[in-house]
Amino acid sequence: MAGIEKKTIQVQLDQEVSFNNQVDYCVGTGRMGLALQKEYYDQLKLVQEEIGFQYIRGHGLFSDDMAIYQEYEDDEGNTKVEYNFTYLDLVMDSYQSLGIKPFLELGFMPEKMASGNQTVFYWKGNVTQPKSYDGWCDLVKATLQHLIERYGAEQVTTWPVEVWNEPNLSVFWKDADMDEYFKLFERTFYAVKQVDARFRIGGPAICGVDDERWIREFLQFCKERNIPVDFVTRHHYNTEMPEREGHYGYQVLTASEYGKENLHTTRNIVDSFDAFKGKEIHITEFNTSYIPNNPIHDTNQNAAYLANQLSWLGDDNASYSYWTFGDIFEEMGVPFSPFHGGFGMVANGGIPKPTFWTFQFFKQIKDGICRFRDDNTLVVEKLNGKYCIIAWNHNVTRTGKKIELSYTFPANEKEYSIIIQQVDEKTCNPLQLWHNLGEPQSLSEAQKKLLREAARPTIRSMRVEKSNQQLSFSIEVEENGVLYLEIQPIRGISDRGYDYKRVMQYE
Amino acid sequence: MAGIEKKTIQVQLDQEVSFNNQVDYCVGTGRMGLALQKEYYDQLKLVQEEIGFQYIRGHGLFSDDMAIYQEYEDDEGNTKVEYNFTYLDLVMDSYQSLGIKPFLELGFMPEKMASGNQTVFYWKGNVTQPKSYDGWCDLVKATLQHLIERYGAEQVTTWPVEVWNEPNLSVFWKDADMDEYFKLFERTFYAVKQVDARFRIGGPAICGVDDERWIREFLQFCKERNIPVDFVTRHHYNTEMPEREGHYGYQVLTASEYGKENLHTTRNIVDSFDAFKGKEIHITEFNTSYIPNNPIHDTNQNAAYLANQLSWLGDDNASYSYWTFGDIFEEMGVPFSPFHGGFGMVANGGIPKPTFWTFQFFKQIKDGICRFRDDNTLVVEKLNGKYCIIAWNHNVTRTGKKIELSYTFPANEKEYSIIIQQVDEKTCNPLQLWHNLGEPQSLSEAQKKLLREAARPTIRSMRVEKSNQQLSFSIEVEENGVLYLEIQPIRGISDRGYDYKRVMQYE
Amino acid sequence: MAGIEKKTIQVQLDQEVSFNNQVDYCVGTGRMGLALQKEYYDQLKLVQEEIGFQYIRGHGLFSDDMAIYQEYEDDEGNTKVEYNFTYLDLVMDSYQSLGIKPFLELGFMPEKMASGNQTVFYWKGNVTQPKSYDGWCDLVKATLQHLIERYGAEQVTTWPVEVWNEPNLSVFWKDADMDEYFKLFERTFYAVKQVDARFRIGGPAICGVDDERWIREFLQFCKERNIPVDFVTRHHYNTEMPEREGHYGYQVLTASEYGKENLHTTRNIVDSFDAFKGKEIHITEFNTSYIPNNPIHDTNQNAAYLANQLSWLGDDNASYSYWTFGDIFEEMGVPFSPFHGGFGMVANGGIPKPTFWTFQFFKQIKDGICRFRDDNTLVVEKLNGKYCIIAWNHNVTRTGKKIELSYTFPANEKEYSIIIQQVDEKTCNPLQLWHNLGEPQSLSEAQKKLLREAARPTIRSMRVEKSNQQLSFSIEVEENGVLYLEIQPIRGISDRGYDYKRVMQYE
Amino acid sequence: MAGIEKKTIQVQLDQEVSFNNQVDYCVGTGRMGLALQKEYYDQLKLVQEEIGFQYIRGHGLFSDDMAIYQEYEDDEGNTKVEYNFTYLDLVMDSYQSLGIKPFLELGFMPEKMASGNQTVFYWKGNVTQPKSYDGWCDLVKATLQHLIERYGAEQVTTWPVEVWNEPNLSVFWKDADMDEYFKLFERTFYAVKQVDARFRIGGPAICGVDDERWIREFLQFCKERNIPVDFVTRHHYNTEMPEREGHYGYQVLTASEYGKENLHTTRNIVDSFDAFKGKEIHITEFNTSYIPNNPIHDTNQNAAYLANQLSWLGDDNASYSYWTFGDIFEEMGVPFSPFHGGFGMVANGGIPKPTFWTFQFFKQIKDGICRFRDDNTLVVEKLNGKYCIIAWNHNVTRTGKKIELSYTFPANEKEYSIIIQQVDEKTCNPLQLWHNLGEPQSLSEAQKKLLREAARPTIRSMRVEKSNQQLSFSIEVEENGVLYLEIQPIRGISDRGYDYKRVMQYE
Repeated sequence: MAGIEKKTIQVQLDQEVSFNNQVDYCVGTGRMGLALQKEYYDQLKLVQEEIGFQYIRGHGLFSDDMAIYQEYEDDEGNTKVEYNFTYLDLVMDSYQSLGIKPFLELGFMPEKMASGNQTVFYWKGNVTQPKSYDGWCDLVKATLQHLIERYGAEQVTTWPVEVWNEPNLSVFWKDADMDEYFKLFERTFYAVKQVDARFRIGGPAICGVDDERWIREFLQFCKERNIPVDFVTRHHYNTEMPEREGHYGYQVLTASEYGKENLHTTRNIVDSFDAFKGKEIHITEFNTSYIPNNPIHDTNQNAAYLANQLSWLGDDNASYSYWTFGDIFEEMGVPFSPFHGGFGMVANGGIPKPTFWTFQFFKQIKDGICRFRDDNTLVVEKLNGKYCIIAWNHNVTRTGKKIELSYTFPANEKEYSIIIQQVDEKTCNPLQLWHNLGEPQSLSEAQKKLLREAARPTIRSMRVEKSNQQLSFSIEVEENGVLYLEIQPIRGISDRGYDYKRVMQYE
Repeated sequence: MAGIEKKTIQVQLDQEVSFNNQVDYCVGTGRMGLALQKEYYDQLKLVQEEIGFQYIRGHGLFSDDMAIYQEYEDDEGNTKVEYNFTYLDLVMDSYQSLGIKPFLELGFMPEKMASGNQTVFYWKGNVTQPKSYDGWCDLVKATLQHLIERYGAEQVTTWPVEVWNEPNLSVFWKDADMDEYFKLFERTFYAVKQVDARFRIGGPAICGVDDERWIREFLQFCKERNIPVDFVTRHHYNTEMPEREGHYGYQVLTASEYGKENLHTTRNIVDSFDAFKGKEIHITEFNTSYIPNNPIHDTNQNAAYLANQLSWLGDDNASYSYWTFGDIFEEMGVPFSPFHGGFGMVANGGIPKPTFWTFQFFKQIKDGICRFRDDNTLVVEKLNGKYCIIAWNHNVTRTGKKIELSYTFPANEKEYSIIIQQVDEKTCNPLQLWHNLGEPQSLSEAQKKLLREAARPTIRSMRVEKSNQQLSFSIEVEENGVLYLEIQPIRGISDRGYDYKRVMQYE
Repeated sequence: MAGIEKKTIQVQLDQEVSFNNQVDYCVGTGRMGLALQKEYYDQLKLVQEEIGFQYIRGHGLFSDDMAIYQEYEDDEGNTKVEYNFTYLDLVMDSYQSLGIKPFLELGFMPEKMASGNQTVFYWKGNVTQPKSYDGWCDLVKATLQHLIERYGAEQVTTWPVEVWNEPNLSVFWKDADMDEYFKLFERTFYAVKQVDARFRIGGPAICGVDDERWIREFLQFCKERNIPVDFVTRHHYNTEMPEREGHYGYQVLTASEYGKENLHTTRNIVDSFDAFKGKEIHITEFNTSYIPNNPIHDTNQNAAYLANQLSWLGDDNASYSYWTFGDIFEEMGVPFSPFHGGFGMVANGGIPKPTFWTFQFFKQIKDGICRFRDDNTLVVEKLNGKYCIIAWNHNVTRTGKKIELSYTFPANEKEYSIIIQQVDEKTCNPLQLWHNLGEPQSLSEAQKKLLREAARPTIRSMRVEKSNQQLSFSIEVEENGVLYLEIQPIRGISDRGYDYKRVMQYE
Repeated sequence: MAGIEKKTIQVQLDQEVSFNNQVDYCVGTGRMGLALQKEYYDQLKLVQEEIGFQYIRGHGLFSDDMAIYQEYEDDEGNTKVEYNFTYLDLVMDSYQSLGIKPFLELGFMPEKMASGNQTVFYWKGNVTQPKSYDGWCDLVKATLQHLIERYGAEQVTTWPVEVWNEPNLSVFWKDADMDEYFKLFERTFYAVKQVDARFRIGGPAICGVDDERWIREFLQFCKERNIPVDFVTRHHYNTEMPEREGHYGYQVLTASEYGKENLHTTRNIVDSFDAFKGKEIHITEFNTSYIPNNPIHDTNQNAAYLANQLSWLGDDNASYSYWTFGDIFEEMGVPFSPFHGGFGMVANGGIPKPTFWTFQFFKQIKDGICRFRDDNTLVVEKLNGKYCIIAWNHNVTRTGKKIELSYTFPANEKEYSIIIQQVDEKTCNPLQLWHNLGEPQSLSEAQKKLLREAARPTIRSMRVEKSNQQLSFSIEVEENGVLYLEIQPIRGISDRGYDYKRVMQYE
């Protein structure tokens, strides 16, 4: 099964290839209460410095550890409501300082407002309907109003609002009661618009399995009730059911094409409504696996598989939010090891996983004009005769196969500099290093530093001269590898007396 | 000429091999006035964080840009002396904050105290004798007294004192006048001891070419005059004369053995005096080339050649101070390019050169017990069954030859983790990357970041099981490569349910 | 009632006055799980940089948010135990990086190990006995063993160990069951010693109200069972019962003497046992009020009252740990305002409260020799003819009274510099500024900066010449004020031509 | 002579008072070579963080320590020119990182290009005409071209260009040769425009004494030669000749009105030319004294005097650049003491002088609408009903006189918060503290910290209720004091149960 697959790429510069790159629009996070933690902050800081997302979305805004909704008895024994924004301010200030804005998911239910005591996750998010929809709407309005006072309406009304999370699953919304969700959506929609009509509100935030029914009925409901929903949301994962083993779950990846088709179905449903044709679809969660203890998230395989997905997710969707930026998470409890298959791009200890670089590479080509796109590579042109390439070798199971890509560009300049950043199992694989260190559960400071250094792309470079008005070169992409290339003309000359070949004794 | 050379190393644990590792005792620097600069500070900070030297030595303490020696006319028209320690305090505070202490070289001559106007370097250090030796001694005493007031006698008296620099060269000491130097030495020696008898004072700080005559006569002089000199100093470089080309000089390296013999001669001369037998010799400067515009300093060749030297320099000497830690220097003027063959371990822009890692690796084995040493490798044992290895492949000219080293250790544990840090022309070669970027004279921030990342060792790892109570493994060292290995027993077990091979689909 | 009270202080230099200054031995903290938070870290960092404590003590090591104790079912359906040290490592690493060590309080009970479901606080610490004492001992041993592996036995065995918290209150220990506590103590004591006999273990950690009975019976129990308890612990607060009003509790302070006598009783009880005579007593919590919503903690009154206490707490006790360093706390829920009467020396937003400076001042005189001590002032002599003074004007209720203190020292030098740092209601009162800002619940970044700046001591200075071999000067201390003075001889002279009076046009 | 002067200020809100606040347009600096230093960087960072200027102007761009202009001999023995931008890049990168842009002063003359060897200052700036005007123009063009390549034409062309410095003084321009300067100006003007016509270029950069003749003839020259000069520049100082004493110079301040009239003369001359009527005048240097060793720069008197000047300097001028931001300077040599009368707003050691706050206060009112302005105070209105006031008590000689200012505002809200930042000889006077410390020449780290803390404004606050639809309050301004007030309505209410008076025992 091993071997090498060869492809040739002839880059044309006279036409633009369609490619909607929304890699940095939004990223997922563990529940909002965890945003108070220092390790969370440090990981998000790393992500923002090296990649830089615009929005961040997660659960738990109204969960009890955020302490927003409070009740007390007044002197006459009447129950009164008060709101506590101390922790919300801490979290939002922290996001502001990191240059990221919330994509507000409204949920889950404060215990004292809840109609039942069903909870989800180790951290016990209450997933029942509110005792009073008026009370819920008051909470939503007071919260948004407070945010506007603190950060200004100009900014806060650019924060998208999503109503609840995966109501089509009974673990997230009691009985997965569709009518009750539609009621919640409608009440919430108008409560938010009442605060400021500029807010944009969407739903139904379903997990990806039930889309046909839920999306269609949600839009039907909006149509009938004349609700001008601003966007549609769903999730997107790419694995079969997990097999449990101790603290871990192992899953088989589904073919990338399967997910692409599934998402296209949603696009078609939305477009089938005259009122909603072309309406934005935001994938508010996506990843390979949907469990936070699947070791695949730590692998180079994950990085390469997602490189492929990032190359086409924008075709049907306005955004796609990787679930999640970091490994401070807790939904299944506190992990025992630094590498535990968490969703994060960054492992605990501030160690970027290979997938981190997939996002970083796609961010770097954000402002380029696409000149080539296929199943293994993307070429974009930037200003001043610079080109960037991403190439990947993605696989569902181990194949042992490399791919060799041979590029040809029209060339005006005499010589070009090519810088290659390489992320594959041999060159940038912190999981392997951790395994070879003996899979330590507690990392020493020295081990963290070593892992962080080993987790950065390997950098190679070359100079290539044009030939026949063409620039031609080849690269090999290892199994599960992702490469990022920058190609630029060399215009300067050597300093007076400097002779690199003589320095290196190459002649 | 290419090929592979093989060696086998059988490590014994029942005996200690002699090895005097003083890698971190002292490091050289550009003139003291440059220590006011921010780029200098940033480079020294990097060096201290990653390596950590105890002392720093350079020229120019009394040169005019430090502004210590001042004269003025009083109301009666008499010339009076005053001292200005503003900049000296800034420099010394900066050193304190970086955890490094000065190895005080007394020189050059303040212009107003000088008997002539001969200067050395672009920055014009005056190299003539003092108009008045009393004035000179006052200056020395006032300076040391001030330092004691500021930093305490306990600390300051641990700073070694060296009298002048390379007086055996007429460019550094007018006419290379030996008798005049001896006079300077004797006067200075007693001036310093008068401040505090605990100070340790040495000389004659000669460049390495003339050692036989100068060292012998210096000691003869001390012996005759009963001067209890505390240590002897000289320099050590390893190249032929340079061939100039534009801003650069190219030189042929001399064989490592040649330098070793030359240094041993000095040891023998010192030991030939009964009064001075075994007296400490400090090499207060050493490097491959003695010019700050020789591109060799930026190469992997330099790193490997010096790894060899660090393995034996302590045999005859109490210390050896690499000339210099960074590339803020200026002796030949301001360099035009970031890579210009400066002496530094760090290039401008905060980019570690390969040689940086040679020192970092030797620092890491500082506290180990040496178990093996030959011309290409060192093995030390540390606490808790941990071993560290340094291996190098050093060359005077290009050979194309790799070396393969096969190690065997007695082993008690079942399995071992081996972490390899690799610095060679293929894996850690910022000079090559800079060349492939087109040798830019002005680095953008993005280029600096890229170069800094590419300038770190590549990290590889493996697990090896013992066999027949032995741990055996081989490594290859590329031409001009330096490797650092850490070997530790693996004692932990995998977390419940974690199966690395399953994660990686290796089975 | 207003007015001024005058005192004269004649400082003698030929005798040392007894004063046991343990101001920096230990400080209290909110529950350990909160140590994961960024705001907690930032506040502790400020405290360590400006004051610097050796130990930190708080609750919740074994509470469920630390996630240490875990159970699972194996394949045969048997319940098995496993330990998770992920968060413990994060907390301890954080403490290490801040140069502080834990004073380990063992408690509360992990839910799965608990015999009941009684909890304490908003954050629900389980306060029931273990289902199995063997299980408890295993947990204790595994935890200490893990810490030793990570930080080394040399260090970890210097961390004192205290068994549980305030078992004499039924809210903290089910039914305040004394026999059950003694059982817990004995089992724990031997479990810890089994890990390493160098560990020092103490109890009974009682709140201060019931000392006579509990301390006596605890020591009686130890005596009878031959338990070589290493130290005795209790708490110390200085208020009557609170009157509740909304989110707050208001209390009347008790006279400082009352607390002193109460503590002396404990000393006498301990000393009444031959086996324990002179045994260390550690006050593992103290403050004015024992509730975290008493606004007194934010006042200058608190600072002055505690200055008085710090001047004598060491007389009977080996240490006294201020409860707590910061305002990330949560025992009564999340506070609504930055100034909410929390225990902390630092308010949320990184704002030092007046009490912060009381500790900072006492820390500065740590290494001096005490030359004078009374109810309002302390004088210590340091090296090189330097003196430090702390003075305070403490009150239980508002009096409107200043005190004037006139000091006389024997003097050798001609002139002295006196630097005064002043903390009182007029000069360093962030609470007042916050009130005058309108008591904002959410502080903007600009308001935080303003409050932090206003929260630093005012600095004044003067020069005083000696007269009749005496240095004499007076200071006024405002109601609830605390002053810190540094007095040093002036030995330098003005720079050539510098004339301060001329500069200031004073002549 | 002492006493109190009272004024009442009735603020009107229905009309805007003219006030051109250009406080942050530009600031002066020591020579460009000093911008390489760390202490320089630290001081500029402080200035930028707390005040924030747009441009920075100083001497020495082409002086030899910047090393830009270089000559060498080629193989045929011909002299060739090359440019070295290594240090220029370091300086400009540093400015970029601090958010400040250069106001480019072209000068002084590189030694190798100079026609003579006359120099100015301790650091020896060559002030002679170029040997070749073509060579000079090439240097100017190459330098600007390089900057454009590095930072982009969009940015670089917003950097104003000024030709030379104070050519009307023979110490700065050989023989103060006016015709030669006009030649330099014309050649340079067209050289710069040739690089990019968007550059704006001005002169004649005269010191303020000779304005009538030089300004008039300069404009006459421009008119006759049809040179479309972009702006006119001059300097502005406010003292008589210095009396020298040791290292210092003492001078008498001139009345503020005197300088105002002098500047108005320049305005009139410019406006008398039809072609240049209304042309921008930039004061590219101003301060009280023009010598860097006048202790007045360190005083509160300087701060108050300049507050007055900042209130009217914009009336006739487009900008006014304080000479200088920091005390790394060197024109008269290296200072012996931290407080030595340097020009800087910041003393060495990072200690803000009182004048620092004058600029910081004026920066804070940058975006307000002026509602009142007289000789002692300015009132501006900002958004949301907020007002800011600056008040000062400026003096030429010591008077002992306070001023009391009583303000009345129209008021809509019930209650207002007033925050007062106070800088006067009693409350914010680091010079006095340094004097009382004994005028140490070398500051310890502890002394630096103490001085930095003592150098910040004292903060006071109060709440005032409106009465008869008016808000009224009074402040006292000490001799040489400067105050900054912020007044805002209080809209929030106390937290449930919080009672400040009860907390403070005020009732």
